Amino acid sequence: MKILVTGGAGFIGTNLCNELRSRGHEVIACDLYNTDRDDYIRCDVGKSRQIEKVFEQYGPFDYVYHLAAEYGRWNGEAYYENLWQTNMIGTKHMIRMQEKEKFRMIFFSSAEVYGDYAGEMTEAVMEENRIKDTYQMNDFAISKWAGELSCLNSANMFGTETVRVRPVNCYGPHEEYTPYRGFIPKFIFHALHGKPYTVFKGHKRIIDYVEDTCRTFANICENFKPGEVYNVGGRSEWEMDISEYSNLILGTVGVSESLVTYKESEPFTTKVKKMDFSKAVRDLKHDPKIDPKEGIKRAVEWMKWFYRL
Amino acid sequence: MKILVTGGAGFIGTNLCNELRSRGHEVIACDLYNTDRDDYIRCDVGKSRQIEKVFEQYGPFDYVYHLAAEYGRWNGEAYYENLWQTNMIGTKHMIRMQEKEKFRMIFFSSAEVYGDYAGEMTEAVMEENRIKDTYQMNDFAISKWAGELSCLNSANMFGTETVRVRPVNCYGPHEEYTPYRGFIPKFIFHALHGKPYTVFKGHKRIIDYVEDTCRTFANICENFKPGEVYNVGGRSEWEMDISEYSNLILGTVGVSESLVTYKESEPFTTKVKKMDFSKAVRDLKHDPKIDPKEGIKRAVEWMKWFYRL
Repeated sequence: MKILVTGGAGFIGTNLCNELRSRGHEVIACDLYNTDRDDYIRCDVGKSRQIEKVFEQYGPFDYVYHLAAEYGRWNGEAYYENLWQTNMIGTKHMIRMQEKEKFRMIFFSSAEVYGDYAGEMTEAVMEENRIKDTYQMNDFAISKWAGELSCLNSANMFGTETVRVRPVNCYGPHEEYTPYRGFIPKFIFHALHGKPYTVFKGHKRIIDYVEDTCRTFANICENFKPGEVYNVGGRSEWEMDISEYSNLILGTVGVSESLVTYKESEPFTTKVKKMDFSKAVRDLKHDPKIDPKEGIKRAVEWMKWFYRL
Repeated sequence: MKILVTGGAGFIGTNLCNELRSRGHEVIACDLYNTDRDDYIRCDVGKSRQIEKVFEQYGPFDYVYHLAAEYGRWNGEAYYENLWQTNMIGTKHMIRMQEKEKFRMIFFSSAEVYGDYAGEMTEAVMEENRIKDTYQMNDFAISKWAGELSCLNSANMFGTETVRVRPVNCYGPHEEYTPYRGFIPKFIFHALHGKPYTVFKGHKRIIDYVEDTCRTFANICENFKPGEVYNVGGRSEWEMDISEYSNLILGTVGVSESLVTYKESEPFTTKVKKMDFSKAVRDLKHDPKIDPKEGIKRAVEWMKWFYRL
């Protein structure tokens, strides 16, 4: 299969390209910057001409994994121009291309679309539940939900075939640290550099090791059901309080808790995210194998290597 | 009161400035283009620097009516880059300015946010109902709902004070014709120019004369309830089939039905929009006076004057 991965030099994108290539697919990656990679072309999906160039040079594609996005709540609030340009206008460019070229698309949404939903997040929640229970709480979340709706409208109007995925707390190798990253890379980076960090109390999360996730994402081509949407994340029995993850990281890195300041729960942030992944298990053979202890060990190793520590 | 009207040279904006000025308010208008108007400054709300210039030159403001937007379903699908830049990034620029400057804002959403909702559209529908019943069906609608959510999030996080309004089928003087306008200006323009047009059968609508609407919009400053949202439109007893509006227009202009091609119902378009305006009646003294017959007469007169017919 010939596959394009937008955002292919990013965290999930890099891992996904590795997984798809290991299965023998012909994979082209594109991302914002020039890189030293093979089978790669620079393309800002917010610029339609650059997308056209990718298709002229490498198309047609059977599948497009559309990962390119400005990521993260606070990043989206600070750099909302970039967020909307890439996440929404860029996605619309991809959809218009899809209407013409007829490839199948996998659109990467986010568990953030569920907003502050208090119950167990099944995919059906975003169809059946009371709207106000899932008001998205930041522009990143809003942009991802807007992208999902645009995919659905294109399917209705033009018969495009898209599967949407909603990853949650994916972590692991190839995730470089920025202040806008999730809590796992933040804690690891800070612990490795002896820098203090803050842990907000009372937030429970399930984390998902990226190689597990990417196996599941790669399986989508093998059982592609247009119109479907899947939560993808770790095992519910792996759920821990964020402070427990912090302790695990401190232990793995071998530094003391004195780096950590504990604060009461973070405002405007969901306390507990309880998600249901049974649909991905059923349709996509979703089967996370690497538990947080092992995954964090590997993530720490990767960061030590990457930052030459 | 000192008031800024973004999109102030547009259809509703022009009428709203007239109404606000007639009440003695100090009104500054801004819009995309240079014009011959007084108390006006060119500003593309998608460009933060241009907004800053408006505030430096004319601020501070007590109220901002944020009307500037790319309008219309098919316009939004054809020119989605402009849509998202103006409607979303532009709105976010205004919200960020509001967080700093603390003016009260009136955000112009649209009845399109209700999607294809089949029941009576009360404001509570967008809080209480099943999400899937109100999936927005095009990017214009999605962008307006996204804008509403951003206003709500800013109110929660920064205490900004905003009232949202959802106008529906507003028509009348100062609405210039483009192919992306609503059915009333389209039918009038075509009838006046002897050009054929299409009427899709089986769509019922209530139309609202712009001067009635703008009186209600102007009343918002006089009873401002932060966080509220209002449907604003005509009287339910004025509801008619689109073909009846067409007949009324043909009669007013004095041309024959032979201009019209009748087609089965338009795809991807709500058949009946049944809306509840009682909240605007209660809080904003909403009181539409000009019925469709009289309103269409005035709209026809205006177009004849504007197009020198």
